[in-house]
Amino acid sequence: MALQQLTQTLLPAIEEELQRVVATCRQPGLEDMYAILAYHMGWQGQGAGPEARGKRIRPMLVLLTAQAAGGSWQTALPAAAAVELIHNFSLVHDDIQDQSPLRRGRPTVWTQWGVAQAINAGDALYTLAFLALRPLPQAISTERTLRACSVLAETCLLLTQGQYLDLAYEARGDLHVEAYWPMVSGKTSALLAACGALGALSAQAEEAVIDAYRRFGSLVGIAFQVLDDLLGIWGDAALTGKSAESDLLSGKKSLPVLYGLARNGPFAERWKQGGVTATEVSALAAQLEAEGGRAFTQDWARRYTGQALQALEEAQPQGEAGAALRELADLLLKRQA
Amino acid sequence: MALQQLTQTLLPAIEEELQRVVATCRQPGLEDMYAILAYHMGWQGQGAGPEARGKRIRPMLVLLTAQAAGGSWQTALPAAAAVELIHNFSLVHDDIQDQSPLRRGRPTVWTQWGVAQAINAGDALYTLAFLALRPLPQAISTERTLRACSVLAETCLLLTQGQYLDLAYEARGDLHVEAYWPMVSGKTSALLAACGALGALSAQAEEAVIDAYRRFGSLVGIAFQVLDDLLGIWGDAALTGKSAESDLLSGKKSLPVLYGLARNGPFAERWKQGGVTATEVSALAAQLEAEGGRAFTQDWARRYTGQALQALEEAQPQGEAGAALRELADLLLKRQA
Repeated sequence: MALQQLTQTLLPAIEEELQRVVATCRQPGLEDMYAILAYHMGWQGQGAGPEARGKRIRPMLVLLTAQAAGGSWQTALPAAAAVELIHNFSLVHDDIQDQSPLRRGRPTVWTQWGVAQAINAGDALYTLAFLALRPLPQAISTERTLRACSVLAETCLLLTQGQYLDLAYEARGDLHVEAYWPMVSGKTSALLAACGALGALSAQAEEAVIDAYRRFGSLVGIAFQVLDDLLGIWGDAALTGKSAESDLLSGKKSLPVLYGLARNGPFAERWKQGGVTATEVSALAAQLEAEGGRAFTQDWARRYTGQALQALEEAQPQGEAGAALRELADLLLKRQA
Repeated sequence: MALQQLTQTLLPAIEEELQRVVATCRQPGLEDMYAILAYHMGWQGQGAGPEARGKRIRPMLVLLTAQAAGGSWQTALPAAAAVELIHNFSLVHDDIQDQSPLRRGRPTVWTQWGVAQAINAGDALYTLAFLALRPLPQAISTERTLRACSVLAETCLLLTQGQYLDLAYEARGDLHVEAYWPMVSGKTSALLAACGALGALSAQAEEAVIDAYRRFGSLVGIAFQVLDDLLGIWGDAALTGKSAESDLLSGKKSLPVLYGLARNGPFAERWKQGGVTATEVSALAAQLEAEGGRAFTQDWARRYTGQALQALEEAQPQGEAGAALRELADLLLKRQA
């Protein structure tokens, strides 16, 4: 309820801030470069609109955190834009790396403008993330602004490290379950941790509060990813929907798969042969469940969800934004498989 | 003389600072990611060594500027590492974009580790550039550190804008000479301008001095590129050396070529047909010279060289480092075609 109401105010403000920042590129002779970025952000071109923009969960998290930590969400707009631009830079490069033809239902940048321009568009969005922080010193101290820059850069390093592992894992057959956590830390958790830290930092919160929101973001990120892996095999879409929705078909080395490989039972035997077909998906999911893969993954999802919610309570979120943050956490973490 | 002596001190210091920053990635489980970066930086793998590192001209420019502007070069080491890392990030991505198999005589990152990991390695070097600035507040004010971050981010935006134009120009047949300058501003001049600005900023120099060094860097960058274009057609290597050295063969839309196309004479006629062969190169260069392309390019090189040297004198560079800066400018700008 609080979340829905606040979203109506915050979402347009986020979009406006993002457009302000990306418009830095809108210069004479560079109209076509701006068009690439505006296409990816969901503002222009075929299929533009809210669906093409994604949910803007990360900037929402930044603004709600700032407000719940005793600041005002307005102050946190530059940081909110920065994390969303980092997220989008990584999507543009991810899509090239994974050779994905579609993103949010539309052709990806590299399929529309080629790999060379897509790499450059990602680099531009990355740069714009740092430029997004420029108004911050008008609202908070230069020391804190500098720290926000550091948080952003450190987060990007974790992202590239997670991405390195993700790409490297594709080629490896000898992975252990332990290999999962550092990859997820970088790929999903680092940017959400930054959302918490930057939101609280924008609110000029105390060190302990900043740290609690940072941990909240980090743990939400891990819990979200584990839950995503669960749904990727036992979710409705994976079991009964389009076959492409199942991680068993795409060959993704998700947490349940790594568990199954470590068990070295019938699931592992079939998986290692490769070439899983759509007709096998349901039986293979049942086999992995019988070997304990589903319970194992659920257990981890529950554990991280509990830790995330505990970190949020330690942060003592205030007011309507605090209630909205709790709702957002529920929304992200209570999806059912 | 001053340059040679200072280089012996500064070059090892630059290399040490770069290694310190890139070692941030050297973590358990990420040894192979570090290996990619260390390979590109010329420290590891087949062919590692001074030749594989490039000349480190940009960080040299930062350090000499800091010292010549009344500061100490040691203070400017973080900024020097930052610009060199930005330069190297752009090289890794450039090589993918241009599908170049070789860089400084060695296989490029993308040919060794694939496009996906090469994109990520570039992203990591980019991130490390911002992390390189972290020690700066120990030596200069947080305000100036923040400004250094801004200079870096603004420079990267110009780089991506220049790169966008460069990639876009490849496909266009209707380019005018005027199209050349914004592309060169981004591709070559922006980072050298940042070297001047960051060097002077590290030295806590006055605003007018920072601006003079910034202009010096910017103008050196343009002059250098124009001279490069001149040598790319009328230099010894282009005319008599390996045929691949001539821009007339690679089809590069350099300044003399754009001039020739605007003239719309015999040169333009032959160029537009495409497929220039090695045996034609010398005659085609002579034709472009007869149409005034060489004199036109020389004139611009001379003009920007003069302006660059004037900006340097306005900066009033001091002591041995000042003498070395003048030598470096001569070295870069007095190459003969």
